[in-house]
Amino acid sequence: MITTDVIIVGAGPSGLFAVFQLGLLKLRCHLVDYLGQPGGQLSEIYPKKPIYDIPGYPSVSAQELVDQLLEQAQPFKPAFTLGERVEGLNKIGGRDFIVTTNLGTSIQAGAIVIAGGLGCFEPRKPAVLNLEQFENGKGIHYVITDPDAFTGKNILIAGGGDSALDWTLYLYKYASHLTLVHRSETFKANPDSVSKVLQLAEEKKITVLLHSQVIEASGKNHLEQVRVENINTEDKFAIEVSEFIPLFGLSPKLGPLAHWNLNLHKNAIEVNPANCATSIPGIYAIGDINNYENKLKLILCGFHEAAMMSHAVYKYLFPENKYTMKYTTVNGIQSF
Amino acid sequence: MITTDVIIVGAGPSGLFAVFQLGLLKLRCHLVDYLGQPGGQLSEIYPKKPIYDIPGYPSVSAQELVDQLLEQAQPFKPAFTLGERVEGLNKIGGRDFIVTTNLGTSIQAGAIVIAGGLGCFEPRKPAVLNLEQFENGKGIHYVITDPDAFTGKNILIAGGGDSALDWTLYLYKYASHLTLVHRSETFKANPDSVSKVLQLAEEKKITVLLHSQVIEASGKNHLEQVRVENINTEDKFAIEVSEFIPLFGLSPKLGPLAHWNLNLHKNAIEVNPANCATSIPGIYAIGDINNYENKLKLILCGFHEAAMMSHAVYKYLFPENKYTMKYTTVNGIQSF
Repeated sequence: MITTDVIIVGAGPSGLFAVFQLGLLKLRCHLVDYLGQPGGQLSEIYPKKPIYDIPGYPSVSAQELVDQLLEQAQPFKPAFTLGERVEGLNKIGGRDFIVTTNLGTSIQAGAIVIAGGLGCFEPRKPAVLNLEQFENGKGIHYVITDPDAFTGKNILIAGGGDSALDWTLYLYKYASHLTLVHRSETFKANPDSVSKVLQLAEEKKITVLLHSQVIEASGKNHLEQVRVENINTEDKFAIEVSEFIPLFGLSPKLGPLAHWNLNLHKNAIEVNPANCATSIPGIYAIGDINNYENKLKLILCGFHEAAMMSHAVYKYLFPENKYTMKYTTVNGIQSF
Repeated sequence: MITTDVIIVGAGPSGLFAVFQLGLLKLRCHLVDYLGQPGGQLSEIYPKKPIYDIPGYPSVSAQELVDQLLEQAQPFKPAFTLGERVEGLNKIGGRDFIVTTNLGTSIQAGAIVIAGGLGCFEPRKPAVLNLEQFENGKGIHYVITDPDAFTGKNILIAGGGDSALDWTLYLYKYASHLTLVHRSETFKANPDSVSKVLQLAEEKKITVLLHSQVIEASGKNHLEQVRVENINTEDKFAIEVSEFIPLFGLSPKLGPLAHWNLNLHKNAIEVNPANCATSIPGIYAIGDINNYENKLKLILCGFHEAAMMSHAVYKYLFPENKYTMKYTTVNGIQSF
């Protein structure tokens, strides 16, 4: 069991700056993030992109900002659990929380700060009858983790974006047969990939069904067949496939946090803007994941929320202490 | 008459970042500051001091931060009126405001943002009977703007800090006589200045009265005499002086803004934290000068408030427009 003062769920810019602000109040932090490195979206999605609206930075690359925030947090020695997803929440002894991850790591602390950004990115699921029945290894795949497992299989891919076309171009070589089903006749994808896919269809190496969508899945213990509908003619017909890969993009979701009984507003956690407290005492939320009147989803807002939250967490953990604001400009951070 | 979209009172870090945030909404700004250069306290009081709590800056000198904020604001071409103090406020035509300065500059705009930091620094006045009667050129001086004017005069300086001692050491050479009155026997000043002053007193070149305070001023059209009390013995006696210089430090004050009929809390302006609106529609306050529940006086809070305020100002000026948040990360700031 890991123990710390404050568990921070999410190691993006708000979570990293929270380490600094909590550190000034002598509170130590343990951060957990599903991604393999700190920095959240900035490091994962657009590390080289310049950002223009960080106060005091006319321009800074996303990764450079993350590196600076890590350096700023360093004096307070944050600990990290990376590549694991926070799932379980338990309260013990009327005071402390225990948080557990999908890989079984347990962390105990007096307060939790959710700095989860836009949340976990989950695949968008199509409206297909019996879809859930074939999830979890029974023929329906939202994410391809092991392409080799598709060798010799009869595959159907649905979607019209880069992800659908890229996997079509990759997997058809290994599949016994591959069918691409797309609702429109235009693709939102790299034109080069589009022409390659249409060329393969012309050469009869794959089957491409346009203006079509999968409406039903069936089979005994494993997927055996899907029903496809032509949207224009409303014709319906069956295709024998053992693997169905719907690729309709990723949608940000709260993930397991949605089951923590926090007050939610759409995909965000409702907080009191004066202290970023959620509806559960001892749990706070900062950054893009929270919501309050006039909330702006900007990194700079998360920074301010981190400061407000830190003072509130201090008061929550030490209600008897009288805190006098100390300014770093007086003696630097060595004195904290 | 200068016209602009938004008048910003105060060119410190919050005011400068407000130019950027308002600029993203296509609103142009005119900043007015009593100081001679932008940057507020950072440039005036501690330009070379490192700051450690700006998010993304493990350390940055105050002036460097100001320079960066100026560069970030530059694309939106802010205009400045420096070295003038905002005093008057008038509303015209039910909509626009006209702000006037102590030097007669008039600026018209649809909204006002007060980003005045700790306000103007005003001299602390001692409790002396008839003090006000001799202000404004009739013998009482809180600030020395023209030392030559004291040549040949009979001067009394009150105070025990560096300012009182430095002016004593400077002015005694030009005065017909100089008396230093101090309430204690210890000075809060450079030890070297203290020993010099005590040496002058021993040599009878000046008079130093310890454990004493001025309690009353009198004279016809100009100051002629003050009454001094020995705090220990409660003895009271008169001293003939034509110039009385009380030097008890500077105290931050709202200054003329205190008469704008804004809701105040101590020296700060009450705002709604969801939009930084004051009690007067169209007037907003951000940074150290505002107050709301759990307000923290940190530069980073002013940055977030600038963003919240900017969206509120836009809605206030263009209630009919529907604004869709645009992110600078998408196309940079050229598109704003």
